[in-house]
Amino acid sequence: MGDIKRVAVLGSTGSIGRQTLEVISAHPKYFRIIGLAAGKNFNLLTRQISQFKPRFVYSQDKKAHPASAEYKFLSLEEMASHPEVDIVVIATSGKWGLQPTLAAVRAGKRIALSNKESLVMAGELITAEAKQNQARILPVDSEHSAIWQCLEGEREKPTKIILTASGGPFYHYSQAQLRKVTVEQALKHPSWRMGKKVTIDSATLMNKGLEVIEAHWLFDMPLEGIDVLVHPQSIIHSMVEFIDGSVKAQLGCPDMRLPIQYALSYPERLPNPNLPKLNWRGIKELTFESPDLDSFPCLKLAVEAGRKGGTYPAALCGADEVAVELFLSQRIKFTDIARLVEQALERHHPTLSPTLEAILAADTWAREEVKRLAGGDKR
Amino acid sequence: MGDIKRVAVLGSTGSIGRQTLEVISAHPKYFRIIGLAAGKNFNLLTRQISQFKPRFVYSQDKKAHPASAEYKFLSLEEMASHPEVDIVVIATSGKWGLQPTLAAVRAGKRIALSNKESLVMAGELITAEAKQNQARILPVDSEHSAIWQCLEGEREKPTKIILTASGGPFYHYSQAQLRKVTVEQALKHPSWRMGKKVTIDSATLMNKGLEVIEAHWLFDMPLEGIDVLVHPQSIIHSMVEFIDGSVKAQLGCPDMRLPIQYALSYPERLPNPNLPKLNWRGIKELTFESPDLDSFPCLKLAVEAGRKGGTYPAALCGADEVAVELFLSQRIKFTDIARLVEQALERHHPTLSPTLEAILAADTWAREEVKRLAGGDKR
Repeated sequence: MGDIKRVAVLGSTGSIGRQTLEVISAHPKYFRIIGLAAGKNFNLLTRQISQFKPRFVYSQDKKAHPASAEYKFLSLEEMASHPEVDIVVIATSGKWGLQPTLAAVRAGKRIALSNKESLVMAGELITAEAKQNQARILPVDSEHSAIWQCLEGEREKPTKIILTASGGPFYHYSQAQLRKVTVEQALKHPSWRMGKKVTIDSATLMNKGLEVIEAHWLFDMPLEGIDVLVHPQSIIHSMVEFIDGSVKAQLGCPDMRLPIQYALSYPERLPNPNLPKLNWRGIKELTFESPDLDSFPCLKLAVEAGRKGGTYPAALCGADEVAVELFLSQRIKFTDIARLVEQALERHHPTLSPTLEAILAADTWAREEVKRLAGGDKR
Repeated sequence: MGDIKRVAVLGSTGSIGRQTLEVISAHPKYFRIIGLAAGKNFNLLTRQISQFKPRFVYSQDKKAHPASAEYKFLSLEEMASHPEVDIVVIATSGKWGLQPTLAAVRAGKRIALSNKESLVMAGELITAEAKQNQARILPVDSEHSAIWQCLEGEREKPTKIILTASGGPFYHYSQAQLRKVTVEQALKHPSWRMGKKVTIDSATLMNKGLEVIEAHWLFDMPLEGIDVLVHPQSIIHSMVEFIDGSVKAQLGCPDMRLPIQYALSYPERLPNPNLPKLNWRGIKELTFESPDLDSFPCLKLAVEAGRKGGTYPAALCGADEVAVELFLSQRIKFTDIARLVEQALERHHPTLSPTLEAILAADTWAREEVKRLAGGDKR
């Protein structure tokens, strides 16, 4: 693989961040941690700092991790664009990924992108800047990694992208059952271990809607060319169809360390005994069904926001993030998430081809709007 | 795709040959028929000659197709190695493919290889000659085409090849039921339209065994790294596993025109409205099970012959071809096919690293041996 790659992990204490460090620990010859950035989990960040000895650190509370002889304190944007960083892993959640992604793209970095909101909110801006600065965005999501792996070596663009969805834990629930879903139930995802926000988004299928928009930008594919297929076993991570009717799929155990490692090691693959392999003796069947857009309107809302473009996807992200927070703090019902997002989007006055400022303003507006719709900001 | 490709089709009146001509007819800008070769189906060959106006013709009965002002009569080897031929499609069945394949390989041609026996009988010889003469062998089998498509763009060799098998029409039959299988039943394959010999080989799983040996040579993969997985829907055409545990699969409707077209158009893909596309609304499930080697011993026999190497695979092919003929002419039972092949192989005295002569001698010996074992040559 040539020289050792210096990796900065933004969001190192979250689920993807921790799994990224696991992968890097397994390959000391190929990767070295040069930067670690985290939000509020000071204890874990402190342990990670002593284990990986990064040169750069960011923490939401600068006082807890002041600069020292061992490392330098940098902002997220500084770290994402620092000349000594070869690969930037953006695993921060929500809108916090947007500005570091933009900084990394402008610095022409290789970016392992796990944060969905960056491309959903600012896909036009980020892909244009990536092109101009020869940055390369490598997806860390299992679905987008699957699509990317299937496209490697192909000369023609695909005619269709088929994003698979587990359907989440409530896929065959009735409306009445969905209304009664508890936070505890919603946090138990059948196949993936993930952060709380993504787990709730998976249960509402909002996550799949965000992935449709993300795939649109990552693979320059019209939204009409992206289908969603419910596949509860989460073995086929996604598929692409080509002009001759041939379909390629990427399969694997549901384990985020595989797409993380692929984004780091690309264009090579590395052996890793810690990664599970599919056991076909245990796989009796793979099943498929069409998504139920009536019971899971978030998917439809997201695709519509993507189609309308402008600041709609940013408003969608902001609205959803607050709605999920309200659900997690037991202030609204599970089914209220889609209702509040829909109402906010109906009230949104969009800007087309928005600047970063307009995108952030739409996000802020949507957050306030959802709080207002839910009965005022009681926090 | 650059210049128009001149294609010679050996075995043009068989199932693969006819489908190759269908594909070529759909792409007059990319391909032109320069040669047609057939065995005994004079009427169809005559019609094909008047439709495609080839410059070179071969027929098993030279008198029926004498040289004319319109075309030149060539032997199979001459056609396969002619300087004006860009792509040689080898769709002749059984051992008749071997020598033309060798001629094409020695002439450094691009070969779309449908004939399994060439690589099974003489894999060592053919792959060595292909390397030396920079010939490229492109598989036309759906399984090997799938593997090849999945490997495109990958830098590392796969750790495992998973060949899928429909299981044939009798997969869950008891021994007693298998003994009573009629020719008519055996010729009805559940998913593929193919020639008689391949259809019977699919029903016994001998076909899958030959494919294991073929995959071994095509992809330079040890036999131990090739698994067979029964997948009755024939939607996943095969899979490969990589060093990081990632698995890629190629899927499509069971239609040979797709792998034929891919071998012709490679490295590009061509649109073809005649090719069916997968409809995921109609696909509820894909199922998998391990192959039943007790009920279908031909698979085991083939893999063993491949492992022993030398002239064993050639003896296997010869023995199987005669056994299938005896079954088709209702002289032996369905279950006798495996028994006769096994008995012939037990009696075989192999040559290691055989010459072409030794390979052909082993084939001839095995044919005679099966006739003798079946009760003398009554033909």
